[in-house]
Amino acid sequence: MKTLSLTGTSGPSRIVIGGTARDLPSLAGVSKWIAITDSNVRRLHGDLLGSGPVLEVGLGEENKTLATVERLYEGLLDAGADRSTLVVGFGGGIVCDLAGFAASTFLRGTRLAFVPTTLLAQVDASVGGKNGVNFRQYKNQVGVFRQPELVICDPSLLKTLPAREIRCGLAEVVKAGAIADEALFAYLESHVDDVLALHPDAVERIVASALEVKAALVQADERESGVRMKLNFGHTFGHAIEKTLKLPHGEAVSLGMVIASELAVARGLLPREHAGRIEKLLERLGLPTRAKLDQAAIADALGKDKKRAGGTVNAVLLEAIGAARIEPLSIEEISGALR
Amino acid sequence: MKTLSLTGTSGPSRIVIGGTARDLPSLAGVSKWIAITDSNVRRLHGDLLGSGPVLEVGLGEENKTLATVERLYEGLLDAGADRSTLVVGFGGGIVCDLAGFAASTFLRGTRLAFVPTTLLAQVDASVGGKNGVNFRQYKNQVGVFRQPELVICDPSLLKTLPAREIRCGLAEVVKAGAIADEALFAYLESHVDDVLALHPDAVERIVASALEVKAALVQADERESGVRMKLNFGHTFGHAIEKTLKLPHGEAVSLGMVIASELAVARGLLPREHAGRIEKLLERLGLPTRAKLDQAAIADALGKDKKRAGGTVNAVLLEAIGAARIEPLSIEEISGALR
Repeated sequence: MKTLSLTGTSGPSRIVIGGTARDLPSLAGVSKWIAITDSNVRRLHGDLLGSGPVLEVGLGEENKTLATVERLYEGLLDAGADRSTLVVGFGGGIVCDLAGFAASTFLRGTRLAFVPTTLLAQVDASVGGKNGVNFRQYKNQVGVFRQPELVICDPSLLKTLPAREIRCGLAEVVKAGAIADEALFAYLESHVDDVLALHPDAVERIVASALEVKAALVQADERESGVRMKLNFGHTFGHAIEKTLKLPHGEAVSLGMVIASELAVARGLLPREHAGRIEKLLERLGLPTRAKLDQAAIADALGKDKKRAGGTVNAVLLEAIGAARIEPLSIEEISGALR
Repeated sequence: MKTLSLTGTSGPSRIVIGGTARDLPSLAGVSKWIAITDSNVRRLHGDLLGSGPVLEVGLGEENKTLATVERLYEGLLDAGADRSTLVVGFGGGIVCDLAGFAASTFLRGTRLAFVPTTLLAQVDASVGGKNGVNFRQYKNQVGVFRQPELVICDPSLLKTLPAREIRCGLAEVVKAGAIADEALFAYLESHVDDVLALHPDAVERIVASALEVKAALVQADERESGVRMKLNFGHTFGHAIEKTLKLPHGEAVSLGMVIASELAVARGLLPREHAGRIEKLLERLGLPTRAKLDQAAIADALGKDKKRAGGTVNAVLLEAIGAARIEPLSIEEISGALR
């Protein structure tokens, strides 16, 4: 078991990696809380949700809306929540995003913890304090930055996940290695089988390393005005691909990382062999690296990407595995890379 | 002209008191912004709103809803706002609350400034970073804490206000004096006529002093877990009265301060003569001090007040004019005081 501590503007946060969700009461120092979850998680892990009220959100990205947040406000109101109430997001990224936004805005903020139940949520949603919902057709258009006070990454929760979901989480682990931790990247290359089999030591190793990468960048730049943007490696393209091809987030990010790597090679920034290692590792982990892309739709989606400023997009390009930098790219240059 | 600086968790904030709204571009360092306002302010001060997009919200508390915030999100999206866009709330408390919440959650936060156009908004909404909307029947149930980077309190904007609105703003000034600034309270007592006539020197003096009281408490306790609660003097009762009697905020707070003072006298905390001075000053300023209250409705409303924890309400009681403390009161004790 490993504990990572970070201090955001919203206060201190503790991330427990390799622990068990059963330790929530002792770790949070409460006997009751309000759980926010979905029907899948409730069916599989209902015994972990506690004896307090359980608020359920619908399955799937289409429920990550303001309407769902309003229903959560109603649930919190009916449950008599006040600012001292602990709200626990118990689920994947969608549940954590919804729970995080609802708890951060209800009464201008209640207490908040996460028990992420997917690998993606453990390595991505649990650290960084980003939450929010989609608006019109745009992802995460509305939300706030707020790091939960406690996150428990329990590896045993991952056993019930479909293989495709595990692979999606691994895309974010590859990303963490690619932008800032060559040793993590090399570990993945040499432990593909252990990782895919969810060997506990391997899971704890990669989740902890991926979170350390993320925590360091978030700590340096919580509001994403500088280095934190490195975490968007593969995501600028990934979000556009996710929307146009309706792929799961991790698969879209996998494709996005390959495109961003090729762009960096084309600019003479990244040695071709490094791009090759990235594509190879993603392939071995069962992630997509090639897809038929609708350039026009993606360019249009990029134009509305929330990270844009003016007519350019801040893209994250690699200089090597383990070293990234942020470059403003014109929509035109990006469209070229999609050909 | 006076400038007050404070540093919240969301960054530094400058409050310019006695300046002119025409200085917004030079003070904010921008030539364009998105204004959020209402039809009254647009009619009276349309020339100050700038050449960028203007988003209008409806008049009155019934528009302080999530539905209005959604329309603002749509306006921001259509205007192509990104995180570097300055959003300016140009209006009274309702406009500032809506603009503050929309700008703090759109893209997880754009730039934000206020030009408060009422005395109440200048002394209350401009400092403290509280924003938000009502939900179901409860006031400010949803929102975040976020201090705008710039506030311009322009006394010339107040000339177009109805006398009743001026008096409502003065209730908050009386409050500031009562909880933490005996000199401000005494100044009000000796300058009632200047204040009611909006003599510029008097306005600048009282707005600056009221904001200094508020800024000091907010600075010490941004998230309202301790001393900041002193700013709720008269408000715990006031909110409940506002809702049940449908009175303007300032008038309800005036009644709330009288009730809270009587409660403090009954407890032997506050000398009766101090309570007398408070009631007298409020009366001379044309604020209500006595009303027929529906005890049951108020007690019910208090039970849902967002500041409650458990079965008690944290009420602010005075020990003297200029000195306040926070006391947990049971709903029963409060009901008694309403008789």
